[in-house]
Amino acid sequence: MARVTIAPALFTPLMPVSLVGAQIDGKPNFMTVAWLTRVNFDPPMVGVAIGKRHHTPRGIQANKTFSVCLPNAELLEQTDYCGIVSGARVDKSGVFNVFYGDLETAPMIAECPLCVECALVRVVDLPSSHLFIGEVVTAHADESILTDGRPDPAKLDPLVLTMPDNHYWSLGAVAGTAWQAGKALKK
Amino acid sequence: MARVTIAPALFTPLMPVSLVGAQIDGKPNFMTVAWLTRVNFDPPMVGVAIGKRHHTPRGIQANKTFSVCLPNAELLEQTDYCGIVSGARVDKSGVFNVFYGDLETAPMIAECPLCVECALVRVVDLPSSHLFIGEVVTAHADESILTDGRPDPAKLDPLVLTMPDNHYWSLGAVAGTAWQAGKALKK
Repeated sequence: MARVTIAPALFTPLMPVSLVGAQIDGKPNFMTVAWLTRVNFDPPMVGVAIGKRHHTPRGIQANKTFSVCLPNAELLEQTDYCGIVSGARVDKSGVFNVFYGDLETAPMIAECPLCVECALVRVVDLPSSHLFIGEVVTAHADESILTDGRPDPAKLDPLVLTMPDNHYWSLGAVAGTAWQAGKALKK
Repeated sequence: MARVTIAPALFTPLMPVSLVGAQIDGKPNFMTVAWLTRVNFDPPMVGVAIGKRHHTPRGIQANKTFSVCLPNAELLEQTDYCGIVSGARVDKSGVFNVFYGDLETAPMIAECPLCVECALVRVVDLPSSHLFIGEVVTAHADESILTDGRPDPAKLDPLVLTMPDNHYWSLGAVAGTAWQAGKALKK
């Protein structure tokens, strides 16, 4: 085992493939994002980092709302497409069937098994991106992905992105149970 | 396909299982975290959300440094243990072999195949957590996980956390190639 240093930009933890929706000039637009995480437990909040030159932030800033939808592996091609073309040049409003919820200006994707509407609570200005922090106001799930009323990853079939190899991955085997597997080491 | 609303807190995108290291009262401490994402491209920055009652933030705030290490599946038990017990009550400095890098106060884990040292650049105060934003200053990788000098997820064997089912997962099959799979849809 030999430890070497590599370029800091090559550090890329596993990323959740997601689609961020925003209403721009009266039309729904969706952008593929993967720099996204929960950031607060109560109320539930997510943080999404988006490069400053992208189109989607215009809609987020204008409406103070956005959505996050989780695609399954069946939607891989359309999902990747939304990360390749910019809404500034291409109308992406017809890629998916769109629905709206409580916030009215956060377009969501009917084909995605799990979507949430977020109310913008903070924008953190970073050198090359903005980090949009939103409170998850309403969550919409397809009944088919629920087990006992809760999202079940095995049914959802979500996608993981890794870089710099740029692969989408499906989940593999369950490797252990969190908050359980380490109990054996407690004195 | 029937869409229903579920509790907003049940929305939990895939999470990268990580260990955050901080020096507290002269000792290394490691905490399991999964609310973590890259947030800026240039310079490379990561954001880590940590609940306000945790012990680790003391060390991050005191030194203005922290580390992020990615464990592989072999380290699952020790990784989970670091998420079960608090450094406020239990000395976790002996769970792993520790090394330090350029920043000197960001303890890292020799057994982890990929570790980075971060300089704290921003703390975002949220209702129940702090979001620590750090610039990735130096990245340390085990040569065995590199392909052509870059981290290779298939060799790294990282862990994904899902909630509310609380499972750790290994990566499964490659489902597609990012920035390629959607090209077929370009007009």
